[in-house]
Amino acid sequence: MSRQLPAYLDHAAATPLDKRVFAAMEPYFTEKFYNPSAAYMAARGVKADYENARHRLAMAIGGSREEIILTAGATESINIAFHGVLADGGHVVMGATEHSAVRTTGEQFPYAYAASDKKGIITADAVQAVITDETKLVSVTLADSELGTVQKLRDIAAVIAEVRTARLRAGNATPIYLHSDASQGAGALDINVARLGIDLLTLNAGKVYGPKQVGLLWVKSGLVLEPLIRGGGQERGVRSGTENVAGAVGFACALELAQAGRHEENERLSALRQKLLNGLETGVSDLVVNGHPKRHLPGYLNVSAPGVDAERVVFALDSAGVQIATGAACAANKGTRSKVLEAIGLDEATADGSLRLSLGHLNDETQITDVIPIICETINRERGK
Amino acid sequence: MSRQLPAYLDHAAATPLDKRVFAAMEPYFTEKFYNPSAAYMAARGVKADYENARHRLAMAIGGSREEIILTAGATESINIAFHGVLADGGHVVMGATEHSAVRTTGEQFPYAYAASDKKGIITADAVQAVITDETKLVSVTLADSELGTVQKLRDIAAVIAEVRTARLRAGNATPIYLHSDASQGAGALDINVARLGIDLLTLNAGKVYGPKQVGLLWVKSGLVLEPLIRGGGQERGVRSGTENVAGAVGFACALELAQAGRHEENERLSALRQKLLNGLETGVSDLVVNGHPKRHLPGYLNVSAPGVDAERVVFALDSAGVQIATGAACAANKGTRSKVLEAIGLDEATADGSLRLSLGHLNDETQITDVIPIICETINRERGK
Repeated sequence: MSRQLPAYLDHAAATPLDKRVFAAMEPYFTEKFYNPSAAYMAARGVKADYENARHRLAMAIGGSREEIILTAGATESINIAFHGVLADGGHVVMGATEHSAVRTTGEQFPYAYAASDKKGIITADAVQAVITDETKLVSVTLADSELGTVQKLRDIAAVIAEVRTARLRAGNATPIYLHSDASQGAGALDINVARLGIDLLTLNAGKVYGPKQVGLLWVKSGLVLEPLIRGGGQERGVRSGTENVAGAVGFACALELAQAGRHEENERLSALRQKLLNGLETGVSDLVVNGHPKRHLPGYLNVSAPGVDAERVVFALDSAGVQIATGAACAANKGTRSKVLEAIGLDEATADGSLRLSLGHLNDETQITDVIPIICETINRERGK
Repeated sequence: MSRQLPAYLDHAAATPLDKRVFAAMEPYFTEKFYNPSAAYMAARGVKADYENARHRLAMAIGGSREEIILTAGATESINIAFHGVLADGGHVVMGATEHSAVRTTGEQFPYAYAASDKKGIITADAVQAVITDETKLVSVTLADSELGTVQKLRDIAAVIAEVRTARLRAGNATPIYLHSDASQGAGALDINVARLGIDLLTLNAGKVYGPKQVGLLWVKSGLVLEPLIRGGGQERGVRSGTENVAGAVGFACALELAQAGRHEENERLSALRQKLLNGLETGVSDLVVNGHPKRHLPGYLNVSAPGVDAERVVFALDSAGVQIATGAACAANKGTRSKVLEAIGLDEATADGSLRLSLGHLNDETQITDVIPIICETINRERGK
């Protein structure tokens, strides 16, 4: 094995904590361990650091700090958003390529899915087609977790604005909001909430080289959510629980680093991805590239080698020192076919042969050069079986 | 200032992370960052470590691992327990000295408080007196967060058993369960769930020298909870979200250390508390000790110096290098009188002069010797104003 192996090509599932982020968090594990609600100066210092982290997170997305609810990750953010908006009932529209955290949460309410086109795009028309007079929440990811296809949220926001105007005219007082789970895209894309045109935003620190079990929900000023988790009244009463100071500081640091470095990193990852794709297309016949050819996260490559069993390829590649995924990590172990691949209309053979390779900080050109023949040989060998 | 200052006498609000716990967690922040749901060997190794941590937590409380739900802390555990049991409605009984996390959660449902006696004990009779035919959940803390008074959960469990028998005879199919938030007591007391006689147990890692934003809910086998947070289906579907491996491993390590060392540490803290109490009783006239004289957490001391404003004392002591609390940290900054002190019937002057001193790992005899004159002088000076 080359010293470049094992090669981690699964940055979509989890990212390693950036050393600078860990260094920023460390004092809050050790000397600055105080409860931010305590009255003495040392605790108030910790509280100030926490609020400063909130402010930095708000700046990173172009929001204001009183709009930020810190959570234990994207799943909790999504649950808070859905329950908060739909506490008194209402209908929800979700994109057909949403993560299971959104799907499972949304399916508790009356719901409809907005169809995806064959490239993984949820068009504004598809959203409009399933909005009813009772729809209160529309949830479309910024970029999905399997294909990495980047959505046109501004177009969807424009549809929501039209629905609002039409309801106003018709005397329908039902509000309608646009939520986006941008967990997967936050490291690569513009996540300015005003430019996206959204009302609620979910982010996850663990996908941007920050700490796990840390997330946020941005809630546009004026939108009041019914709390899901009650208690001491932290996070303006919407999400009680002793504040996670280390997590908030780490998240702020990670998001700032990701946003500041994204153009350079995107360029680097795009080149690596192209190299990888060229290599796979040369070495594997009939390779299918899933998702949108242009509107995709720079480090994401979802390919199908029809006729192979992707799970077997993943295991064989693991033995050869290459770590990749089939579909989303959450669904990978459950033997169910990917909803995203179903949504873009892949036939069974293509879906069952689908591999997700997601590049990031841990990859470089030498490593990609090394893994190309390993991946091609593994796929071809498995195909022969 | 002595090199022993500042003296941290607020272990009830937050405990510093034990160095051994931090060392156990560290690999999961850095090299072992994998998503436990991924398919390759390295990720399955992380998943195994996570499940091993769950097993160790189960062992520490005498439960089995499939009964453990890992959460983002006590507040979330409490919310999951209450919503899980009361999803279809029902009445809840809470002890009058419960933490605000329990109170606020329980008050969403039809509820009653079981009265406290003047020492902070919630007697079995007091619980029995407010149970109705619709009561599904009784929640009594193992030891409250302000007085540290230790409850007789077994007596309360016996009442619950009687109610079950009576309901069976009367053909009332409504189930009834006993939940205990043992966050404050877990470092000092026996938390074997069978010996306590409970059905649900909440614990918080951040109170036992473990990581913050980590907790667990133990749910007795056979009791099926309606999920509060939905998504990828982790934690047997009851609490979705990518697993917090570092947190689980740290929690297991912290709880094991706390339980293994509790007899020795209890003895040490009891002696320190007695020394502190003797010093304060000598130096401050008319000192009132709140809570039970015997059934209290070994490091807890809640005293009132009637006529002083406790908040002023806390600030003055902070300047003098001694960090303590008035009432519970969560309520301290909110200008509301403590519900616990109200529940034990303290008059206003005594309640407003109440100070909570909670000892732990960061304290030793020299330090206690040093702080006694500082605390006495500060109280006496404030009393003179």
